Formats: sequence, structure tokens, C-alpha cells
Amino acid sequence: MTDPLELLKAYIQHPSVSTDPAFSEGMQASRYFVKDLLEQLDFKVETIETDLHPILLAERFGDPDWPHIVLYAHYDVQPADPYELWQSPPFEPEVRGGRLYGRGAADNKGPTIVHLAALAQVLEAHPNLPLNISYVVEGEEEIGSPSMPKFFAEYGARLAKADYLLVSDTGSPNAEQIVVTTGLRGLVDLEIELKGPAQDLHSGVHGGAVYNPLRALMEIGASLHNADGSVNVPGFYAAVTGVEDWERAELARYPETQATYQKLLGVPAFAEAPGLSPLEAVRFGPTLEFNGIGGGYQGEGSKTVIPSRAFAKITCRLVAHQDSLAIQDSLCRVISERCPDGVELSIRRGACADAYQVNPPHKSPHDSAASHRLRSAFTAVDAAVEQAFGKAPLYLREGGSIPVIADFKKQAGLDAIMVGLFTPKDNLHAPDESFDLELMQRGITAFASIFKKIAQQA
Amino acid sequence: MTDPLELLKAYIQHPSVSTDPAFSEGMQASRYFVKDLLEQLDFKVETIETDLHPILLAERFGDPDWPHIVLYAHYDVQPADPYELWQSPPFEPEVRGGRLYGRGAADNKGPTIVHLAALAQVLEAHPNLPLNISYVVEGEEEIGSPSMPKFFAEYGARLAKADYLLVSDTGSPNAEQIVVTTGLRGLVDLEIELKGPAQDLHSGVHGGAVYNPLRALMEIGASLHNADGSVNVPGFYAAVTGVEDWERAELARYPETQATYQKLLGVPAFAEAPGLSPLEAVRFGPTLEFNGIGGGYQGEGSKTVIPSRAFAKITCRLVAHQDSLAIQDSLCRVISERCPDGVELSIRRGACADAYQVNPPHKSPHDSAASHRLRSAFTAVDAAVEQAFGKAPLYLREGGSIPVIADFKKQAGLDAIMVGLFTPKDNLHAPDESFDLELMQRGITAFASIFKKIAQQA
Repeated sequence: MTDPLELLKAYIQHPSVSTDPAFSEGMQASRYFVKDLLEQLDFKVETIETDLHPILLAERFGDPDWPHIVLYAHYDVQPADPYELWQSPPFEPEVRGGRLYGRGAADNKGPTIVHLAALAQVLEAHPNLPLNISYVVEGEEEIGSPSMPKFFAEYGARLAKADYLLVSDTGSPNAEQIVVTTGLRGLVDLEIELKGPAQDLHSGVHGGAVYNPLRALMEIGASLHNADGSVNVPGFYAAVTGVEDWERAELARYPETQATYQKLLGVPAFAEAPGLSPLEAVRFGPTLEFNGIGGGYQGEGSKTVIPSRAFAKITCRLVAHQDSLAIQDSLCRVISERCPDGVELSIRRGACADAYQVNPPHKSPHDSAASHRLRSAFTAVDAAVEQAFGKAPLYLREGGSIPVIADFKKQAGLDAIMVGLFTPKDNLHAPDESFDLELMQRGITAFASIFKKIAQQA
Repeated sequence: MTDPLELLKAYIQHPSVSTDPAFSEGMQASRYFVKDLLEQLDFKVETIETDLHPILLAERFGDPDWPHIVLYAHYDVQPADPYELWQSPPFEPEVRGGRLYGRGAADNKGPTIVHLAALAQVLEAHPNLPLNISYVVEGEEEIGSPSMPKFFAEYGARLAKADYLLVSDTGSPNAEQIVVTTGLRGLVDLEIELKGPAQDLHSGVHGGAVYNPLRALMEIGASLHNADGSVNVPGFYAAVTGVEDWERAELARYPETQATYQKLLGVPAFAEAPGLSPLEAVRFGPTLEFNGIGGGYQGEGSKTVIPSRAFAKITCRLVAHQDSLAIQDSLCRVISERCPDGVELSIRRGACADAYQVNPPHKSPHDSAASHRLRSAFTAVDAAVEQAFGKAPLYLREGGSIPVIADFKKQAGLDAIMVGLFTPKDNLHAPDESFDLELMQRGITAFASIFKKIAQQA
């Protein structure tokens, strides 16, 4: 196989912005590019049509008793605008200072090339490597994976035969300290609109008779947290379990302190989170956030109106065991109960996604359910990363959401080993996205070792 | 003097939009037009320069012992856009169905012509009418009368020699039922901004550590009312006096019921106002309203950010005896006290204006302070309106604010008799503004009688 850096450059040159129809050619070219690479490695590749961008399902199967892993990646990227903020054009990859710059370099094309290059290396040396591999590469991750539910419905059973999932679409704090992500938060999305008077009213002529929708919105909004920062929605915490001692021990080794974190955020003080420090709260606690509110006069100075409408966009981040649908129901119910008679409430229910959590068997005392192969895989990852990067990985939950990971668990019973190959320096979703070439090389070394080791677990 | 309708048409043809420098020629022409009319009536007219639009101070003085009234009007109008919503062009007055259409027809050019035509009629018949008149016509009413404080500082003493103020810049419910406005609410304006993190943050990566500025805004906002609808700001009600029995009796005769009012507003239910019905609350109670709030993502669908900033525009309407500056202070103080540590608060203090209230001596038992001339003037107005319109006027406070009226009281000691000559049908500040020609004619008859009667009170 070609030099991994050249491969990654070629991959980035196909502009695969899934959200923009203008990039349909780049989407197709990216897909063909990955398909071709997989076929070079003797995968049998199916192109599964969806309503938008097809999913690749590649399989390398031998003896059914061999270990069987699923790899997941995505060939689509975020939009690159504003182009003028890039130092070099986003789809003309350029190496500067040990980094390759280009849209998708880190999310998710670089990590994909790491996996493929490592596989190529191992399969070249061991053409008969006793490892069954299912490789899922979707093209709609950056737009919320809308076709994956149907994919799971049709192909979940085939994937369910595998032992676990291996993914590199999460982050690490820097190029030396790799994190294996052990949990992702779930998500509940909804938007409320309150309608008061039929139109904006003069606040002098009519003030006093009308329940101002902005007041109603703020009263409802303010009711959703308690003074200690906890979320005031019935049942919200019912299923939440605590933080394990081993998790706190891992976090203590994380290269960030409260002081550096506060400086990064630029806040005058942290918010209170019941029972959790700020660095814990973003990983181990559920939240309810207001992402946008509005209503009435938005311009300069003042305008004495009683507005007709107000809205709030609300999302929750959930932790393991919280039922996203039940929490969305409860949230809708309390908002409705707390809405005064003077305004009409309408709710747009957005997406729901459950959290995902795995307890790494070699870290957690609660590992009784873990399969022998999952346990061995974690051990293999641990050793390979320590050898390649000089430090053992940290095992931490993270605050973001990748709903498809929970779906692999729910729909195919697969736990995930998520090895973070991008870092904050990589500027994901922003101008000047890049990928650390030293990390790339170490990643390939680590994954070659991982693939070899897990193949030996038969 | 020319036919009043022709006069009003000519006045409207001078487009005097005070807020827009493009209309400076129309402002000047309007001012010249009024100055000329006043000079035709033998007023001595001074043009008092301001930073923006000059004020006319016209005087017709005879024996210092004659009764002395001040008339107040404004020659500026609201902007007319959107022009395409007008049936006839706003500055090309047109009579349709007994109404004259054009910007300023009702606010305030029509009522001004009523006063001037009535004066002309009386002075033609009684050239030596024993009545001293100071006529103040400003050109910045529609932009908040910014030059009036300086005017009062320089000319207040001259006005203070008068007995009272006579104004027609308030409303009546319809062309048959005239209202004499006995009170206007005051105003407190401020805007708060809350700043949390230095920039919008990813709600997954950072949710839990940060006090969301939208949450802080809603908690502060929600704290500003009690459950019974009262305003939760220390001292807010300290000076508020109750509603007089005669005021409730007047309101009972007002041609609006709760049912018709609710339909007009289009609200599912009224807001609660402690101790006041909805029709009372808009006239007799103080309020705190949110005129605009905003922050975070405002577009379609969802975006999972923790916003960096949030704002709320707040105005209070105050009733008599409330100290607008003290209430602004108290409001700023409690907002500051209720602001959590996690966000930075900044407050823009806007305008403050006290309320104005007069107890008509022939209605109120609390009339001991009223001068003989004020008492006689109310009686004259009452009789003249009943004769011209067939119904005695109603004496009611209204919810809007005309700060200059309170300033006439504060700076020159003048109480105001406000005879409402526009109605809701007149579309003030909106397209198709018009003035009822039948009401105009009756108004002239009534004011001719009023001027004659008060001149006899010497």
C-alpha cells in the first residue's frame, strides 16, 4: 500500500461535505477511494444505498471462530467555510510544521488512514491473519447519521456476530497522552415556543393585562434547574449511577487542572454541579442547557413592546442508563405543567439518543459481564498504546455524543473501544483543521500491534 | 382663517419625520406652517433652537390677571414606512368615508388644528378675549422629547406663571365618548447583558462546568415577578396609592368589557395583577415588562452550543408617586444581587420618567389642592364636551407615558387637562393613519366653548 501520508493527502483532496449537495461528486469520489483501499486489502465491499449518501459495508471473513471485530469510520467531512480563514485551501492538503492541513485531516480521514495503513502493514506480513473484520464506513456522520437506524435494522444481525467495535473518532488531550473513551453522553433535543397576544402590543397601553411570553419563558426556563445546579425535571436522575473510583483516578492523571480549564473557558467562575467537580461534571454528569432563546425587540436601544412570541432551544446531555425518550417526555410534561394560562405552548421534539458507557475490564471492578475477547482487546490496546506513545492510555468518559456508538450496542450488542487519535490542536470543525504526523505514525504502529494481538486471541 | 380641513391637509403635506434626517425640509416646513398660523392669531412666536429640531414658544399676553393657559402640541410625526401598506400616500392627504388619511392626521396634527381653529373662531368673534396663552410646539416628541429638559430649564419660570396645561395628545375609545386623561404612567428603561464563557462553547464537551448565561438570564428574569403577578423589586410598591372609587365608577362606564378586551388582545387568558382587574391594571397599576430577550442560536432546528452572551431589555411602567430613579436603582441592585458568579453582568441604564396624575376637582374628593381656575377649567371642559359630543367625558388614567406632561408639572407646576381627540380607529404610528372629520368638527366646537368659558374665569 502507498505511503500513508500520500494516501491521506489523496483522501482529503476529495471534498466530501455531506450537508451540501454541491459536493456530491466529492462524496462519491471519497467513497470510491475508501472502497478501493478496502478492496486492495481483500475486503469484499458492499455499497448500501440510503436516501442520501451510501454506506460501505466491507467484510474480510475467514473461519467463523476467529476473533471478529467491527471497525467504524465516516468518509464525510464538515463544511470548510469560511475559506478565507484557512492558511492553505481546505481541500489542497499541505504539510506545515509536522502537521497535514486540510478539511477532514483529523475528522475522520486521518484516523481512518491510520487503521487502514496498520491493517495493510499487518496483512502484508500475515496474509492469513486469523481475524474476521466488518468495516462500516458511513457518509452522513456530520449530519447526524440519519441512515444508520435503517442500516442497523437490515444489517444489525450480521454485525451482532462480531465481538466488539473499534473506533477512532474521539479525542485525546495531546499527541503524547492517548485517551480511550469509555463513555459518550446521550442527547435530548427540544424547542418550545410560547405565544401570548396575537401581535406585539404597546407596553403602555396594554401592560398589566397580558402575561408577557418572555416572562413565561423565563419562569419556565428558570424552573428547570435547582439552586445546586441539578436539573429540576422529575425522574431526571433516577437511573444515574455514580462515578467509579477508577474513573476519578484516571481523571486525576488527565493533563488539565481546574485553573487551566477555567482559563480556557474564560468564565469568571464555574457552575455548581452537585457532587462533581467541573472537570468531572463535563464527563460524568447529565446536563440541561439552553442553546438559544429569543423574543421581542432585538435591535439597539429600547422598544416598548409586549412581544407576541418567545422561544427556547433546549438540549440535555445524558449519562449511561438514562432513558432519553422518557426524559424528553418528562421534560415536555413539566414544561407544559409550568406554563401559565396566559400563553399557548407548542413544543418541537427533536432527536433523542441514549448515552453509551463501557467499563474497561482491566480497570473496573464491575467487569463480570465483559467477554474474554473484549477484556483481551482492552489489554492489547493498553499495551500497544503504551509502547507506541510511551504512556499508557487514560480511560475516560467524554461529554460529547456519538449516537451511533450507542446504536452499535443497542442494535448489535457491540461494546466499543474508542481510541482517540485527534487532539484540541487539530481544529476540528474549524478552519485550519490538521492532523499530527508524528501521532499518525505512532497510531499506525499501535494499531498494527493491536490487530496482531487481537488476532492471536482466537 | 382657512377651512380647518384644508389647513390640516396642508399641514400633513409637510412630511415632518423627526427621527430621519432625510425629512429635515419637511420638519422646517411644518414648523413654519404652525408658526405662520400662530402669527395669524397674533401670537408672538419665538423659535428656540435645540440640538435637533427647534421648539416654538408662542405667546398671546394681555393683562397679567387674566387666566393663563399653556397649550402643548408637537409638529413632528412618526415614520410612515412601510409605504406600500398605505391605501393612499402618507403625505398626500385624502378624504375617504368621513376620515382624512395621512401621517400625522391624528398624532398630532389633527388635534393641533382643532385647537388652532377653535382659537381662531373665538378670537375672530372676541378679538379682546381676556385669556393669556403660551403655546409650546415641539418637534421631537416622537423621538422622546430630548430637548425639553433644557427648554424647561430656560423657560420653565415663564410657563410657571400660567394656571394649567391644556393638551390633546391622548386617546378616547371612540368618536362619541371623549376621555379626559387624568394620569399617565412613568417609565424606567434598562438593558442587561450577561457574559459567560469567552466564546460559544460545545455543549457536549463543556456542558456541566459552565453557568449558561441564558440560564442566568432566565433565573434573574423569573425572579422579577411574584406568583401573584406583582413585581418582586424592593420598594417597588412603596409609594403606590390605590384606585379611587370615582375612578372605578368612571371605568365602569368605559365602552369596553373584559370579554371584548380579551378578544382584542387575542390572549388565552389575562395575566393576574394583584388587586386589579385587567382593565384596571393597564391604567392604575405599575408593571415590569420584558421587551426583548436573546442569546445563543436563533436559526432553524438545533445547535448544541453554550452561548457566550445573553441580553434582556426591560421597561417598567410606573404610577403616580413612584420615584423612577429610585426604582431604576433598586432594579439594578437586585439584578446585580441575583446574578450568579459564573457570569458577568453589565447594565445599560436607559431613560427614567415619573408618572403624572391629576385628580379632577369635580370628580375626586381629594381636591383641596386644586386651584379655583383648574377646577373651573375641568368644569368648562366637562360641559363643552357633553354639549358638543352628546356625552359627558370619562375621566381616566391611561397606561401610556408622555414624560413631558410630568415635566410640565415638575418644572413649571402645571397640572394638565388632557382631552383625547384620537381613537383606536385612527391607526396611530401605523399605516393608514387617519382623523375622524366629524370628531374634528365637534372638537372645534367644544374647544371654542372651552376657550370662551375659561376666559370668563378671570
